[in-house]
Amino acid sequence: MFFKIVSKDENSKARTGLLTTKHGKVKTPVFMVVGTKATVKAVGPDDLKKMNAQIVLANTYHLHLRPGEKLIKNHKGLSEFMGWDGPSITDSGGFQVFSLGFGLEHNIGKIGNIFPDEAGSKKPVEKKKNLAEIDNNGVTFKSPLDGKKHRLNPEKSIKIQEDLGADIILAFDECTSPMHDHDYNKKAMERTHTWAERCIKAHTTEQKLFGIVQGGKFKDLRKKSSKFISSLDFDGFCIGGSLGNSKKDMHDILEWSIPELDYNKPRHLLGIGAVEDIFESVERGIDMFDCVSPTRLARSGYVFISPEEKGTKKNKFRIAIKNAVNRNSKEPIDRTCGCYTCKNFTKAYLRHLFKSKELLYYRLASIHNLWFMMKLMEKIRNSIDENRFLELKKKWIQ
Amino acid sequence: MFFKIVSKDENSKARTGLLTTKHGKVKTPVFMVVGTKATVKAVGPDDLKKMNAQIVLANTYHLHLRPGEKLIKNHKGLSEFMGWDGPSITDSGGFQVFSLGFGLEHNIGKIGNIFPDEAGSKKPVEKKKNLAEIDNNGVTFKSPLDGKKHRLNPEKSIKIQEDLGADIILAFDECTSPMHDHDYNKKAMERTHTWAERCIKAHTTEQKLFGIVQGGKFKDLRKKSSKFISSLDFDGFCIGGSLGNSKKDMHDILEWSIPELDYNKPRHLLGIGAVEDIFESVERGIDMFDCVSPTRLARSGYVFISPEEKGTKKNKFRIAIKNAVNRNSKEPIDRTCGCYTCKNFTKAYLRHLFKSKELLYYRLASIHNLWFMMKLMEKIRNSIDENRFLELKKKWIQ
Repeated sequence: MFFKIVSKDENSKARTGLLTTKHGKVKTPVFMVVGTKATVKAVGPDDLKKMNAQIVLANTYHLHLRPGEKLIKNHKGLSEFMGWDGPSITDSGGFQVFSLGFGLEHNIGKIGNIFPDEAGSKKPVEKKKNLAEIDNNGVTFKSPLDGKKHRLNPEKSIKIQEDLGADIILAFDECTSPMHDHDYNKKAMERTHTWAERCIKAHTTEQKLFGIVQGGKFKDLRKKSSKFISSLDFDGFCIGGSLGNSKKDMHDILEWSIPELDYNKPRHLLGIGAVEDIFESVERGIDMFDCVSPTRLARSGYVFISPEEKGTKKNKFRIAIKNAVNRNSKEPIDRTCGCYTCKNFTKAYLRHLFKSKELLYYRLASIHNLWFMMKLMEKIRNSIDENRFLELKKKWIQ
Repeated sequence: MFFKIVSKDENSKARTGLLTTKHGKVKTPVFMVVGTKATVKAVGPDDLKKMNAQIVLANTYHLHLRPGEKLIKNHKGLSEFMGWDGPSITDSGGFQVFSLGFGLEHNIGKIGNIFPDEAGSKKPVEKKKNLAEIDNNGVTFKSPLDGKKHRLNPEKSIKIQEDLGADIILAFDECTSPMHDHDYNKKAMERTHTWAERCIKAHTTEQKLFGIVQGGKFKDLRKKSSKFISSLDFDGFCIGGSLGNSKKDMHDILEWSIPELDYNKPRHLLGIGAVEDIFESVERGIDMFDCVSPTRLARSGYVFISPEEKGTKKNKFRIAIKNAVNRNSKEPIDRTCGCYTCKNFTKAYLRHLFKSKELLYYRLASIHNLWFMMKLMEKIRNSIDENRFLELKKKWIQ
């Protein structure tokens, strides 16, 4: 059995489960570590093992462009190629194509201004030219690597993902932007539904295939999309696309979508990974997350702290290592943390490495932030098993 | 006893020995890993332990500018600050000041064009303005970090090194360039000798202090300098400065200098680390080496290979990982290598990481190159113990 529900929280829709793949088991709710180009940035498989990372998510689009799926197939698949002996998952390339398309045109990214109403003081980035053209059959886009034209469609995405050989693969979808209206979202959703059927048809391996729910911030579309995707022969579901203009919109979208999905299949919320969002989404029944934020924030100098170290929703559970207060600090980033970084290095040393742009900094900070996420998910799973998920949530995000 | 000679090769001047420091023992001949800014670039103390790295060399000049020696003293010293539980050594800052001075003016660096006659097709770099002023009392230079003026002299270098707290510290010297004539070298050598006496006088701790032999490529000066430095109360010796215009010059310099040095004290050849040079220098009685080349070459895409993998003096025991021949290779860099990188990753994967500029590449390649050096030195030590050093040398460099 691919997915088994292990326990259910009595006071919310949170649940724990177990995914069983050829490369090993995955306890849910899980935060999947992102390894876009078949490597988790700055972190080795040895580091991942030590932090009990369970599964790595890599990107079809990036790996198709370099080094190419045939090369990875020739190396027995993604996990083997990257020296990672655990399970892996690939996205379909749909989101990356969106990033090159309306993502650029509308200046929307998964990080920073994912929720336009809450972007706050974020410096407005210039809108850029849309590099992707979508038609009913697929997408044509220019490679930012060499400017060459590429074509991606449902059949091709599935073929690439089959060559990449991850344990879980995703249907090719069209991701919309929060700027898109009901009309456009309806059109894109219908395209995504047709593509979902084409993906199932094209799929030939034992890899588990997940369908993707779209529909933007519109209740009728989200409900319709969830029902339709759930009616198809998928092994699990993703909730994708624009999650609206605010966190409130995202919660609504989860509440509209999740009840329409087959309860016994796993649910992956694409690209989300802030502490607060994880609690809110697990509460509504999400089983799987992926997000680049822990490693990306680490590289920009932000490291996570727990409530014991005054981590709160307001400071986003993080400190800036470069701050002068850390200059001479003999303390680890988080005294409650058991990661290699916190067990062996002071904030003063990490600040020195960061300010000196030393490569070791990127590894140490990334190890810490990922360990923090792995531990958070373990605490969440334990709290669900023991019917105290809402208590844990309250402790963390009030 | 700080230094004990363990065995002597019957057919050369090679010898093995043991350094005993507060932070542990060091078997010689040793290749000391360079950790300029209190970190070995891209490599963690955990990685260093696994490769049996014995001692880390850090730079007084760099650490003085950032984060400052007082901060490191406040963290109980260099090894403790960087989370490294083994011995450490600091250079005196003399060479870095040279790099800012005649190094820039004469376009000479330790790597690449260290031997001007052998620089070959190296692209000539524009000569730059000398940023250091040397007088009999010390050196004034501008910080490349913020343009501020700094002053370094023997007393100050020793005080900084005492604050940094490494197990071994070096006297402050004046390093000359291969372009300098006999007159200038004589003047610089005499300055270095006065400074050597001042360093001994200024030295207040139990840290072991090494004197530095100078004299450029001139036989009379090298002999005089060695005798003089050996007559002072140093715990060991470095051979520094310009090592001439060719490898032949370097061999001459070693043959002139070493016999004049107290046989029972360790000898460190500053900044040298190519495979060929290590064999030639060990043969002449050198015990200690340091060089940035293994990690620097790794970062530029060059990884070491042993004679079993067709590593030779001619190809400098290295391959370029980016070469097309590695594109689809399922082999490790070196099939005889036991490092983490070779045990877990193919050349195709490393090439992919390098071409994608992924941070993990820098760690994996640096681990390999350093492991290679550690193993080479172990082989050299064993060969000396067993009186077959010249046999090993022949196998490696013909």
